[in-house]
Amino acid sequence: SGLVLVKNPHLDLMEEDVLYHLDLGTKTHDLPAMFGDIKFVCVGGSPNRMRAFAQFMQQELGLADAGEDVADICAGSDRYAMYRAGPVLSISHGMGIPSISIMLHELIKLLHHAKCRDVTIIRIGTSGGLGIEAGSVVITDTAVDSSFQPRFEQVVLDDVVVRSTQLDKDLAEELLACSRDIPDFPTLIGHTMCTYDFYEGQGRLDGALCSFSSEKKLEYLRRAYDAGVRNIEMESTAFAALCGLCGLKGESCCFHLL
Amino acid sequence: SGLVLVKNPHLDLMEEDVLYHLDLGTKTHDLPAMFGDIKFVCVGGSPNRMRAFAQFMQQELGLADAGEDVADICAGSDRYAMYRAGPVLSISHGMGIPSISIMLHELIKLLHHAKCRDVTIIRIGTSGGLGIEAGSVVITDTAVDSSFQPRFEQVVLDDVVVRSTQLDKDLAEELLACSRDIPDFPTLIGHTMCTYDFYEGQGRLDGALCSFSSEKKLEYLRRAYDAGVRNIEMESTAFAALCGLCGLKGESCCFHLL
Repeated sequence: SGLVLVKNPHLDLMEEDVLYHLDLGTKTHDLPAMFGDIKFVCVGGSPNRMRAFAQFMQQELGLADAGEDVADICAGSDRYAMYRAGPVLSISHGMGIPSISIMLHELIKLLHHAKCRDVTIIRIGTSGGLGIEAGSVVITDTAVDSSFQPRFEQVVLDDVVVRSTQLDKDLAEELLACSRDIPDFPTLIGHTMCTYDFYEGQGRLDGALCSFSSEKKLEYLRRAYDAGVRNIEMESTAFAALCGLCGLKGESCCFHLL
Repeated sequence: SGLVLVKNPHLDLMEEDVLYHLDLGTKTHDLPAMFGDIKFVCVGGSPNRMRAFAQFMQQELGLADAGEDVADICAGSDRYAMYRAGPVLSISHGMGIPSISIMLHELIKLLHHAKCRDVTIIRIGTSGGLGIEAGSVVITDTAVDSSFQPRFEQVVLDDVVVRSTQLDKDLAEELLACSRDIPDFPTLIGHTMCTYDFYEGQGRLDGALCSFSSEKKLEYLRRAYDAGVRNIEMESTAFAALCGLCGLKGESCCFHLL
């Protein structure tokens, strides 16, 4: 049916679903009227960048002039920022798996309540590249954890539930094809490694609070490269797992920051 | 000496340390002049709340009138917000362990570069209470993980490093004594459980995307209460572990949201 799958039987029995961190809710807002026609959702860490992206989309879609402002739909909350440009939603998710998980939970319920159909969700973020040209865009085929495994371990109460982190292959190929239309736009498909930390988790020797061996770091990064990892960030496994769980067509493309 | 301990020999050999997510750095800013006299650092998730706290502190310390604005020291970055009121810094950390870890890494290096001495750091956040009166404040003696163990597991490359999550007992007692001076201010000392997720990790049946048993949830929360847990949030184990690692006197007090 193209609808979002929410496997929680409690949800439709609730009198009200408050999407607390988005400052939206089923009683306070007419979600089908506000969001029913959404077809694309783009998510990224930084609120300023997601506002700029919405402004860019408005202009690309011929909905507004360059630089015209967009309103923050979640202005009542300072946890996330949300903008729309026609059928495209642009939302910030902060940094790290717990932060993106809260946002995706509430976003997916929003799409469910709004009865959206055939939604494509794309994470457009920044990452550190591994053995690739600076400024490249990596389109993720599979998100992997720090042991290079395609899995996301979610603790539910005190059980560990393991979820797949495979992303949509057709969508990845489609995005790669789009990139070929743009000159000087180095783009590749590869695995993306997701860590729980920016400094120690990713072995940033200079920036960490504890000491560790440069040799070990290099050996680890070499093993990651050999396992197919082309970039490192902090949200992709949770993103892939939640898209998969709810039947959303999802993809993650990250710009490799210098 | 009261200085912050940074156990990374690389750090002092670097020509420049860019505290990227705070938009500060050792070459671009005179950190000792800007921050050398800081004695207290208060951290919390929401940027708006940390601004309101800095305004409140300004007024309490007689440094400004009510409602007088404070400037965001990290205005060049939208990742975190930082304000100061005399010797008190007030900083937001976003939601979840990865987000607070990035901020604490850069904050602790800031305190190191600025040669601050005898700094006390307090997390003032919100949490869900467990078997306690709504509106209570829980002062954490020990942060525990979802198995109720006083430990924080940090993945460093592909090794798991286990760190203690004991907080400062004297500081906890001091804060409890302060609370007694204020009428109708229910405050207690207890364990704080830290999870990686708000919905599934904390068993929010109504809000989760997957289904699970109410009985199992109640049984789990009962076991948590019996283990001494009085509230649940998403940052305390990483906070306690990093304070401990760097010799910072740290404490976490959370307001139990309704």
